[in-house]
Amino acid sequence: MAFNKKSRITSKKTDITQWYTDIITNSDLFEYGPVKGTMVLEPDGLALWENIKKILNKEFKKIKIDNVSFPLLIPESMLNKEKEHVEGFSPEVLKVTQVGNKKIKDALIIRPTSETLFCDYFSKKINSKTQLPMKYNQWANVMRWENNTRPFLRNSEFFWQEGHTCHATKTEAKETVWQVIDIYKDLIENHLGMALYCGEKSPAEKFAGAVKTIGIESLMPDGQALQIATSHYLGQNFSQPFKIQFQEERGSSFVEQTSWGISTRIIGGLIMAHSDDKGLIIPPNIAPYKVYVSNINPENKEVAQFVETIKEEIGSISFFEDTSNKGFGFKIMNFEMKGVPVGLFVGKREFEKKEILVVNRLSGEKKLVKKDSLVLLINKTLTSIQTDLKKSQQLFLNEHLVPAANLSQLIENISDGRAGIVCFCTSKKCEANIKKKYGFCSRVVNQRAKSGKCIFCNENSLFEAIVARSY
Amino acid sequence: MAFNKKSRITSKKTDITQWYTDIITNSDLFEYGPVKGTMVLEPDGLALWENIKKILNKEFKKIKIDNVSFPLLIPESMLNKEKEHVEGFSPEVLKVTQVGNKKIKDALIIRPTSETLFCDYFSKKINSKTQLPMKYNQWANVMRWENNTRPFLRNSEFFWQEGHTCHATKTEAKETVWQVIDIYKDLIENHLGMALYCGEKSPAEKFAGAVKTIGIESLMPDGQALQIATSHYLGQNFSQPFKIQFQEERGSSFVEQTSWGISTRIIGGLIMAHSDDKGLIIPPNIAPYKVYVSNINPENKEVAQFVETIKEEIGSISFFEDTSNKGFGFKIMNFEMKGVPVGLFVGKREFEKKEILVVNRLSGEKKLVKKDSLVLLINKTLTSIQTDLKKSQQLFLNEHLVPAANLSQLIENISDGRAGIVCFCTSKKCEANIKKKYGFCSRVVNQRAKSGKCIFCNENSLFEAIVARSY
Repeated sequence: MAFNKKSRITSKKTDITQWYTDIITNSDLFEYGPVKGTMVLEPDGLALWENIKKILNKEFKKIKIDNVSFPLLIPESMLNKEKEHVEGFSPEVLKVTQVGNKKIKDALIIRPTSETLFCDYFSKKINSKTQLPMKYNQWANVMRWENNTRPFLRNSEFFWQEGHTCHATKTEAKETVWQVIDIYKDLIENHLGMALYCGEKSPAEKFAGAVKTIGIESLMPDGQALQIATSHYLGQNFSQPFKIQFQEERGSSFVEQTSWGISTRIIGGLIMAHSDDKGLIIPPNIAPYKVYVSNINPENKEVAQFVETIKEEIGSISFFEDTSNKGFGFKIMNFEMKGVPVGLFVGKREFEKKEILVVNRLSGEKKLVKKDSLVLLINKTLTSIQTDLKKSQQLFLNEHLVPAANLSQLIENISDGRAGIVCFCTSKKCEANIKKKYGFCSRVVNQRAKSGKCIFCNENSLFEAIVARSY
Repeated sequence: MAFNKKSRITSKKTDITQWYTDIITNSDLFEYGPVKGTMVLEPDGLALWENIKKILNKEFKKIKIDNVSFPLLIPESMLNKEKEHVEGFSPEVLKVTQVGNKKIKDALIIRPTSETLFCDYFSKKINSKTQLPMKYNQWANVMRWENNTRPFLRNSEFFWQEGHTCHATKTEAKETVWQVIDIYKDLIENHLGMALYCGEKSPAEKFAGAVKTIGIESLMPDGQALQIATSHYLGQNFSQPFKIQFQEERGSSFVEQTSWGISTRIIGGLIMAHSDDKGLIIPPNIAPYKVYVSNINPENKEVAQFVETIKEEIGSISFFEDTSNKGFGFKIMNFEMKGVPVGLFVGKREFEKKEILVVNRLSGEKKLVKKDSLVLLINKTLTSIQTDLKKSQQLFLNEHLVPAANLSQLIENISDGRAGIVCFCTSKKCEANIKKKYGFCSRVVNQRAKSGKCIFCNENSLFEAIVARSY
């Protein structure tokens, strides 16, 4: 239980970095692993991730994506097959060079992502057009070494799903890229209650090996961007070196591919977006428990019996029961720390009036109700929390994503904790300059209604970019 | 679909090793990964594993075991903390020594099992008796390098669940060891339809670091033993070096621990036990699909419509639909290869009579039924296959597990493809001798009703062992 750890949480407004660390350290979601940047997902943390899995698996199934499981290790020689891909990943990969005390010849790489493994498989399996599309997804752990690690937000080992699909036509592949983006948007907005923006990544920021990357991001309370999902159109960049071909009447063709993923990083984003100085706030749609049931006078038999009838009353609604012998103060703080959406508190006084104290974790509002109105109030509260979280996030995004007509306006916006929408040429050179000079970069790029001038290099451009500092 | 691969399957009676390879190569469960001993679980293979997961998760929940997720890597210095444990695993562990091209100081081990990681966590978390018992389980990939690899049966990377629990008392820890054994037995007998024997592992064969290991094994058709699940009582072997302590009135005590696991190896055992020369036979209770629906004349619109009404009729029963434009011969062979319990075949002839051809994959029996009797027949067939598989496996075990009064009888039994039950002293020295001389060893050991003489060394002994060659 949470309060075994530490009790003081730094204010989110004063120091969001320290606040985040305090929240994580006090939560029942996460513990640091012994290797830098690795993590233990504790029962509540894993349950949260499993709930996200369930939502995505259901949607993936609707568009006929099959789950599979691929190996952990990639022979170094195989990773080297796609040039841009290996250059993008090689500085951060972990290499196995020994079994026991014996050296091995071809080093083995712990997957930083699995395009090469899937492509090797596809090349062995696919030969006929009737096998296409082939649409696979796996839930897996991957590793990319990080020097600056932060729980969930930047781990060396993280959990994710990675989808990999092969198609006979460009059109179908591109459609899939966007179908998956729609699934991610639905998850993020309607289940996680977060606000997002979406668009193409610039040439400098796209996935190593992709023709095109579509990114979904959210703006964190400090105005920094957090990339939370990407969907890549790979074209034939991998199918050519890996020789993934199918027979058609007019000869053989290379398949068109996509890949896409969302990771445990999103849990970091979720915490940043919603939680407050009292602890976690978890959206009801993905909360491990929807209700926190607490008996304030557990030594009293009649109260205990009353609590049993309450548990029966709430039926299939998932709940956490606080069976500790601590006082009301501890119990309400623990309820707030865990971020369970609705708290039910019952002691002698409540029992005598046959009432239950119902607490809304988001608003803090407290209501006393009779048992026969309880389920209705719980459901109403769950719905209102889910709606209110999304509304306040959307409001935040609207207020913090603002057009800037020139560079000085943009710099001012960003230093004020906002992100800018600006005309941008999208060239790699221009992007590198900005990043080096100002420490921010383009997050996503979308087409402009009419041509304008890049606010950095003054070249004509048909694009506008969202520009921000980022996690 | 299966028959893209190869078409001839060696007879199980003639050459079970080649038969197994042929079955695996032709199935839709598995593909070799690029690194020796690694595997791709294809959609049907993963679905099978997920069904096993569901059954176990439900039972684990009943005894309040929480799922968690732990890191992949163990610092080499941490693995070294429990002496017997590190000696048992060190020759087969994979070592990460580089990040990109930079060497790292303390090598990182890919987990061969996670006792040390869990113990490191427990030592940080546990301080009070009120936190006990702490009962965790994780579903994960682990690696142990193998030179002789065989799909599912002996992989370098495999998937498993590993449970790790901490208790205040010996009694409670030991109870947990057996509670889990009961859960495994139920899975193996009632869902996987396999026959098993169970008992303590001898000192030479127990888990490296355990006080006591309980093993569950099954006898394969060639008379070789396959270990499929183990549950270990660890005592304080890990809690002492890792300093996992809790406060009691009379001072601090070390926790008592257990660990236990079952892996994808069981899928190999399942295939070995049930499948035949036509392909897989999967027990209905864990089959990815219970029914194979096949239209033999897909070009005929009326037949196609009839098939649609059949799919509606079977409702929530999971089915695979063969939409290929191949003939009846191919379709029935594919149904047999995939091991779907019940096949439904409909062509022009069946449509005209408004009948459906129902095939029992296990018995090969074919029946023609009207639509309104279909669901009843499917359910009856599923039940009978599940029952028949278990019966025939139990019969096989009864016939192949036979007492031997002396060494020459035992040798004869084993060379005839059976296992022996013999009086055995359980000493490490005696066991090493037998293994070296005859290539078999004790599989499990149980207490005898009265003392006897070890058939190998003639010492007095209160134990009898099941002795066999093993996978």
